[in-house]
Amino acid sequence: MSATPLPPATTLDEIRALARDAPGPDSQARAIAEAREPTLTKPAGSLGRLEEVAHWLATWQGRHPPRLQRTRCVVFAGNHGIAARGVSAFPPEVTHQMVANFQAGGAAVNHLCHANGADLAVIPLALDHPTAPFDEAPAMTETEVLDALNAGLTLDLSGADVLIVGEMGIGNTTAAAALSQALFGGTAADWVGRGTGLDDEGLARKRAAVTAAIDLHGKALRDPLDALRRVGGRELAAMAGGVLAARHARVPVLMDGFICSAALAVWQAMDPHGLDHCLAAHVSMEPGHQRLLAALGKRPLMALDMRLGEGSGALAAIGLLRSAVACHAGMATFAEAGVTDKVTS
Amino acid sequence: MSATPLPPATTLDEIRALARDAPGPDSQARAIAEAREPTLTKPAGSLGRLEEVAHWLATWQGRHPPRLQRTRCVVFAGNHGIAARGVSAFPPEVTHQMVANFQAGGAAVNHLCHANGADLAVIPLALDHPTAPFDEAPAMTETEVLDALNAGLTLDLSGADVLIVGEMGIGNTTAAAALSQALFGGTAADWVGRGTGLDDEGLARKRAAVTAAIDLHGKALRDPLDALRRVGGRELAAMAGGVLAARHARVPVLMDGFICSAALAVWQAMDPHGLDHCLAAHVSMEPGHQRLLAALGKRPLMALDMRLGEGSGALAAIGLLRSAVACHAGMATFAEAGVTDKVTS
Repeated sequence: MSATPLPPATTLDEIRALARDAPGPDSQARAIAEAREPTLTKPAGSLGRLEEVAHWLATWQGRHPPRLQRTRCVVFAGNHGIAARGVSAFPPEVTHQMVANFQAGGAAVNHLCHANGADLAVIPLALDHPTAPFDEAPAMTETEVLDALNAGLTLDLSGADVLIVGEMGIGNTTAAAALSQALFGGTAADWVGRGTGLDDEGLARKRAAVTAAIDLHGKALRDPLDALRRVGGRELAAMAGGVLAARHARVPVLMDGFICSAALAVWQAMDPHGLDHCLAAHVSMEPGHQRLLAALGKRPLMALDMRLGEGSGALAAIGLLRSAVACHAGMATFAEAGVTDKVTS
Repeated sequence: MSATPLPPATTLDEIRALARDAPGPDSQARAIAEAREPTLTKPAGSLGRLEEVAHWLATWQGRHPPRLQRTRCVVFAGNHGIAARGVSAFPPEVTHQMVANFQAGGAAVNHLCHANGADLAVIPLALDHPTAPFDEAPAMTETEVLDALNAGLTLDLSGADVLIVGEMGIGNTTAAAALSQALFGGTAADWVGRGTGLDDEGLARKRAAVTAAIDLHGKALRDPLDALRRVGGRELAAMAGGVLAARHARVPVLMDGFICSAALAVWQAMDPHGLDHCLAAHVSMEPGHQRLLAALGKRPLMALDMRLGEGSGALAAIGLLRSAVACHAGMATFAEAGVTDKVTS
């Protein structure tokens, strides 16, 4: 597994090559995990999805037993020109204020990291330079999206057993909705929700902005990376970059909510196996998320009515991963414990 | 809050009095929790069920902020005469073998306790004296059910912030199904599932045993405690006793799966608020559990396809409680962090 960070990409084609050449599953680690499972002192399958989680971790860490000591959480923040359209219940300056709150240790993400034993890094991305309003121009230039992708791609993931990428950015559910529609079709009504708590008028403005963006950029959106550039945002691109880096470093990824899932969906739109190293931690209350997870073929571990972002839903699921690893790696076998295995009744 | 254990009850009427006189919610602690929530630096409601969990813990611990440092897990084991009817995929000696496995540290419950920071106690209940087969006689005498109830009622819960009761007992999903039907009606087919992995013939025998038991005991089952005595089991009675002790000690309870829920349902059948201090951690794969949680009006936190017992599903949810407490108690307020609260868009 890669101990050193990837170098920054200098073109989008280099990013495409990294996605194309990403390592696949470790079928040997998976086979060992699957063979061990029925020997453990419990009825076959009785740990349910915890068994799936243990096998997934082994497969994508490329190691048996899987390990869950160090969870790396990286929260990226960006500002969005589209926020000027009145698509959020909060004003744009809240992005900067919340980054300060992250740095001071007062936000949900800080306490979720502490409670669940995760390391936190916060990376603000050119907050004083919002993306362009994507209903009238591409959100980012090629240089800008490349810089944002590189913020994730060059993460040092050495020692990490699992990666969580989170985000903060007033207006970014609008970007996530536009990107989802660009990648998976449907209408703005399918993907647009109330985000942080938008009223009816705001919801109408948000749908209109997404519809206008999809019309404006047209066929250019068929290229997933160009869709990310045109209707995404810096923190979305950075999350995507981080998840590509994780694939190369053999670090499985626990996916957070709607914005995270939309950003990561770019890789699956490019390759049907592009997110096989990612597990959906939860389905959020943002209505587009359920649709998006269905499009990605991901079954979430939890449904807790969360809709905060910051990586919060994924952080809350760390205990499930730790539980899964502890059982799989530590339990006695029927033979070791002298327990009679199932008999035909 | 009660620091000393309750004395053993000497009659079932004493148990009834303890249930009747159990303390209610701490409305002051709840009010403080609910008032704090909207001041925290996140969109209103965005932590979803984690907010509900924090308020529930404050309400039933009778303290603000709520605390989650010490989780107490107690696993009771019992043997069942009904197992002789071929209602389990495993032979009865597995109860004893699994208790030895618990004591040696090799079972799922050991590793789930360790991974989630819970203390574990294992209490075998007269394993060499199975209950009577309840399709031909009451499972327990009044003395026997009282002894089993007292095994839970007299638990020392001092210092515990939350209680989890788990179980082991070959044949005990049959008891849980019979008890559920006794308390909530329906047919055996509604409540009987495959347990640890029963085949079709075994399933038919299990349904027949439950139907015969309901017919045999008839109207006597209308008294919930007598139903527990007639078609329950020692570990079910002990779990019920522990949860009543927890109510008196102001220790909230995280409910595990089908067998645990059936045992605890006795209190709600006696008083509609009898399980208000209990939160359903998960819904298991055992089909009766979903029906039972619906009858109890409990929405489970998780659905992970688990069906192991031993308290396993509740233990896996501890991270959610810890996450909820950490956010509620630790997050900065909008005023403290200098973050602009929601504006009308």
